Amino acid sequence: MADEFEAPGLPGLIQRLRESLPAHCILTRQEDTKPYECDGLSLYRELPPVVVLPETEAHVIAVMQACCAFGVPIVARGAGTGLSGGATPHRQGVLLGLAKFNRIKSIDPDAATAVVEPGVRNLAISEAVAPYGMYYAPDPSSQIACSIGGNVAENSGGVHCLKYGLTIHNILRVRVVTIDGDVIELGSDAPDSPGLDLLSVFIGSEGMLGVVTEITVKLIPKPICAQVVMASFDSVETAGQAVANIIAAGIIPAGLEMMDQRAIQMVEPFSKAGYDTGAHAILLCESDGTQEEVEEEIGRMRAVFEQAGATRLQVSSSEEERLRFWAGRKNAFPAAGRVSPDYYCMDGTIPRRHLGRVLRAIEEMEVTYGLRCANVFHAGDGNLHPLILFDANDPGEVERAENFGAAILELCVEVGGTVTGEHGVGLEKINQMCVQFSREELDAFSAVKRAFDPYGLLNPEKLIPTLARCAEYGKMHVHGGNLRFPELPRF
Amino acid sequence: MADEFEAPGLPGLIQRLRESLPAHCILTRQEDTKPYECDGLSLYRELPPVVVLPETEAHVIAVMQACCAFGVPIVARGAGTGLSGGATPHRQGVLLGLAKFNRIKSIDPDAATAVVEPGVRNLAISEAVAPYGMYYAPDPSSQIACSIGGNVAENSGGVHCLKYGLTIHNILRVRVVTIDGDVIELGSDAPDSPGLDLLSVFIGSEGMLGVVTEITVKLIPKPICAQVVMASFDSVETAGQAVANIIAAGIIPAGLEMMDQRAIQMVEPFSKAGYDTGAHAILLCESDGTQEEVEEEIGRMRAVFEQAGATRLQVSSSEEERLRFWAGRKNAFPAAGRVSPDYYCMDGTIPRRHLGRVLRAIEEMEVTYGLRCANVFHAGDGNLHPLILFDANDPGEVERAENFGAAILELCVEVGGTVTGEHGVGLEKINQMCVQFSREELDAFSAVKRAFDPYGLLNPEKLIPTLARCAEYGKMHVHGGNLRFPELPRF
Repeated sequence: MADEFEAPGLPGLIQRLRESLPAHCILTRQEDTKPYECDGLSLYRELPPVVVLPETEAHVIAVMQACCAFGVPIVARGAGTGLSGGATPHRQGVLLGLAKFNRIKSIDPDAATAVVEPGVRNLAISEAVAPYGMYYAPDPSSQIACSIGGNVAENSGGVHCLKYGLTIHNILRVRVVTIDGDVIELGSDAPDSPGLDLLSVFIGSEGMLGVVTEITVKLIPKPICAQVVMASFDSVETAGQAVANIIAAGIIPAGLEMMDQRAIQMVEPFSKAGYDTGAHAILLCESDGTQEEVEEEIGRMRAVFEQAGATRLQVSSSEEERLRFWAGRKNAFPAAGRVSPDYYCMDGTIPRRHLGRVLRAIEEMEVTYGLRCANVFHAGDGNLHPLILFDANDPGEVERAENFGAAILELCVEVGGTVTGEHGVGLEKINQMCVQFSREELDAFSAVKRAFDPYGLLNPEKLIPTLARCAEYGKMHVHGGNLRFPELPRF
Repeated sequence: MADEFEAPGLPGLIQRLRESLPAHCILTRQEDTKPYECDGLSLYRELPPVVVLPETEAHVIAVMQACCAFGVPIVARGAGTGLSGGATPHRQGVLLGLAKFNRIKSIDPDAATAVVEPGVRNLAISEAVAPYGMYYAPDPSSQIACSIGGNVAENSGGVHCLKYGLTIHNILRVRVVTIDGDVIELGSDAPDSPGLDLLSVFIGSEGMLGVVTEITVKLIPKPICAQVVMASFDSVETAGQAVANIIAAGIIPAGLEMMDQRAIQMVEPFSKAGYDTGAHAILLCESDGTQEEVEEEIGRMRAVFEQAGATRLQVSSSEEERLRFWAGRKNAFPAAGRVSPDYYCMDGTIPRRHLGRVLRAIEEMEVTYGLRCANVFHAGDGNLHPLILFDANDPGEVERAENFGAAILELCVEVGGTVTGEHGVGLEKINQMCVQFSREELDAFSAVKRAFDPYGLLNPEKLIPTLARCAEYGKMHVHGGNLRFPELPRF
C-alpha cells in the first residue's frame, strides 16, 4: 500500500501553488498541517506535506490543474468528522480543506431549495432556513459539526432518513471541479435530469471523482408537530419483530431507533433521558405532521407495539420530553466513551427481518470474545451501530475487538446485508469491499472512477480496492471464509 | 449519422448466434423482423437485420460476447412502448427483444420486495403482489403494456411519482450482463450500498451501459383508502399558483395533475369523466392513507384550493368515482388521437413556480403557430406533456408543429427546466442535449459510457450526442439562440 505512489512533483507543485494562490491559503509547516493528519477515524494518521485552503472556485481549479500537471494526489476534506478515514491525508499529496467555502448563497422558499457551499455545516442550513418554516432533513449525529460537502461525499444518513431519505434523496444539484480543472454541474432543479444520472454516482463517491464547490439542497417544511413513542421489550427479538411489524403495517415513522439493554444502561446515567433500564430493548418511534396526523399515527404505532408484546409504552407529552427521549440516543457515543477507555463503532446493514437474529448472535459473541457490546441503531433502516467496548492498552482486547467486529460484519453479509450503511468505506473497510463485491463489480467501480479521474489522483487508495489488494487480502487474511481486519491494529 | 457504423461482422455474427442459441430465438426474415422496426416513437423506423429473443441469461451472455467479437451494435428492447426512440433498431445491429424474460421469480412480503425479469409488464407486478396488500408504485400511462426493464432503461415516472418517487426510487438491485458478457449486480437489498452508486447511473441509461436480466423492485402497502379532489380554476395561472401553494403547505399528494381547457374539452366527450368543461384549468389532487389521514389531508387540500380561488370543488365520494375522475386524465393521449389526425407529445420539465407563466406562453404560441395544444401534465412534478395537434398530411402544419414544440422546450430550458422529464432522450431529443449540457458535461457522460462500453456497441447514437453532432447541430440549426428539430420532419 505504501509504495504505489511516488510524487517527485511535490516541490514543483508547491512552487506552482504559491504562484497561483494567496500565501495564507497554503500551509506546509508541521505545526499548521498537524491538525489535518486525521479525520474522525483517528487510528489512521498521516501528516500531509501540504494543506491548501482555497477561498474561491478559481483557487480549486488552480489546485486541480497543478496536481494534474505534477502528478500529485489530492484529498478533499470537509469538517473532518468522517468515521471511515475518507479524509485521511495522502502522505505525498495535497490535503484540500474546504472550510472557507462556508456561505449560504441563496434560499428559495417557493422552490424549497437552498444553494450552499460545501463547507457549510449541516445544522447551519436548517438554522438559516428556519425563518421560512423549513429544514434540511438528513441529520447525522455529527450534524452540529459536519459539513454538507462531507455529507455529499459520504451519502450521510441520520435518524430522519427512514422517512425523508439519505443525502442522495435531498440533493438536487452539485457543481464540481474535475481533476482537469473543468467545471461541470450534475443534476438539475427539475425532478429528473436528462442523460446519465451522474449526480447519484457522485454522491457517496468519497472524494474519488471530483471536488464540489456548490450544492443545491432540497428543503422540507418543518412539521407542525412531532411526538415519540418509547416502547420497552423483554428481548431484542421481540423488539426486532416490532420494527418489522411497524413497516409491514405501512407506517413510515419519522425516526425508528433501537437500543439494547447494554446501551440503555450505558446511556441513562449520562443523559437522564428517562429510559426503562430494566428493559432488554427499547424502541423510539417518532411521528410528525399535523396534530391530527400525529395523533392518528401514534395510535397505530401504540397498537402495533402492544400487539408485539411491549412491556411498557410512553408517549412524549411535550416538545421538551420528546427532545429528552432523543437526547439519550443521540449521546450514545459520548456515553460509550465514559464507560470504556475505547470503543469501536461498526456500521453494518441487514435486512430488517433479521434484526432479532443478528442481535441475539451479537449477545452470544459478547461471551465468545469476552467484551461488552452496546447496540444503538437505525432499526427502521436495518442499519446497526454496535459499539464494541475495549481497552486499547490491552493488546489482547484489541485483537478480540477486531475479531468481534469482523464477526459482526461477516454476519451482516451472510444475512444479505452490507459492511457499511452510512459511514462510508474510506480506508477502514477497503478490505471488506473485496468480500462484498465480485471482481467484475470492482472492475465496474474502477472503470467509472477512471472515467472521472484517469490519472488516479483523487483520494487514492480509498473506497475501491485494487485487484492486487484483494488478492493479497484473500491470500493473507481469509481463512476458512472468515474476514479479518489486517490494517486495524494501529489503535 | 448514417456512416459512423460499419458492421462487416454481421454475417459472421449471425453464424455464431446460430451456433449458440436455439434457431427459434433468431429472426432474420423481414416478415419476422418488421414488428421490431420502431418503438412508440413511430416516426423513426429502421428494419433490424437480425432480431434475437433470448430465453436465458446464458443466451444474453452469448449474444453480448458475439456482438463484442464481431463489433456489431446491440439495441435492447422491452415492450416497445417508449416515446423517444430508445429502442429504435440499429440498421446494422442486433435487436435484442427481452419479451421472454417474463417471470416473476419471487415475492417477499416481509421485506416488501419482488424479484422479476425485465420483460414483466409494470402492471403485472402490482397484480401479482395484490394478494399481499401491496403494489409497485411508479405507474406510467402505458403501465398495462410497458415492461419493467423498459422502465429501468427510461427511469419512468407516472401519476404516483410525486409521492412515491420515480423508477430510480423504487428499484433496489439489478442484475446486468455487460458488453463483455460479465454478470454484475448493482445495488443491494440494504438501504444503501457501499462503493459507487452504479445502480442509479444504470437506471435511466437507455440501454447504453448493459442489459438487465433481473430486477429487485420495492413494494409498498396498498393504501387503505384514497380520494381525489377535483378543483376548477378560471385561468391556468391561478391553477398553477394553487399547485405551488399545495406544495408550500407541506402537502405531498399521491398525485397532482393538471389539465387545461383544451385538454378538458378534448377528453370529456371521450371519457365521460365528469369534468367541468367550463373551467380554464382543472386540478386532480389525490390523498391516500388511512381513513383519518385522507379525511384530514383532503380538508387541507380543499382549504388551499379555496384560498387560491378555485371556482368549483368536488371530492370523489366512492372508489368508482375516484377511478372515473382519473379515467379522463389517463385517456388524454387516445382522446387526442380522436380529435386530431396527429399529435406530438412534448415532455419538458420546469420549476413548479413557473407553471402559470409557461402555460400562458403556450396559449400565446397557439396563436403564433396556428395550431391547437392540449396540456395535460404532472403538475406536482413540474413535468409538462403538451400535446400539439396537427395534420401530418399538411407539410405546413408539420413544420409549425416542430417549431411550436421547439419553442416550448426552449422556454422550459430558459426558466431553468429540462427538455425531458420521463420519456427519455433516445433519438428524439439527442440534439437538445447539446443545448442542455456543456461540452464538459457531455464529456463526463461519454467517459462513463465508455467505462461500461468501451467499444460503443450498446445502443449507439442514442442519449449522448457526440461532440461532432453538437458542432454540426450548432452550425446548422441554432440561429439567434433558437432550437430547431432538424431530424423530426419524417412525419
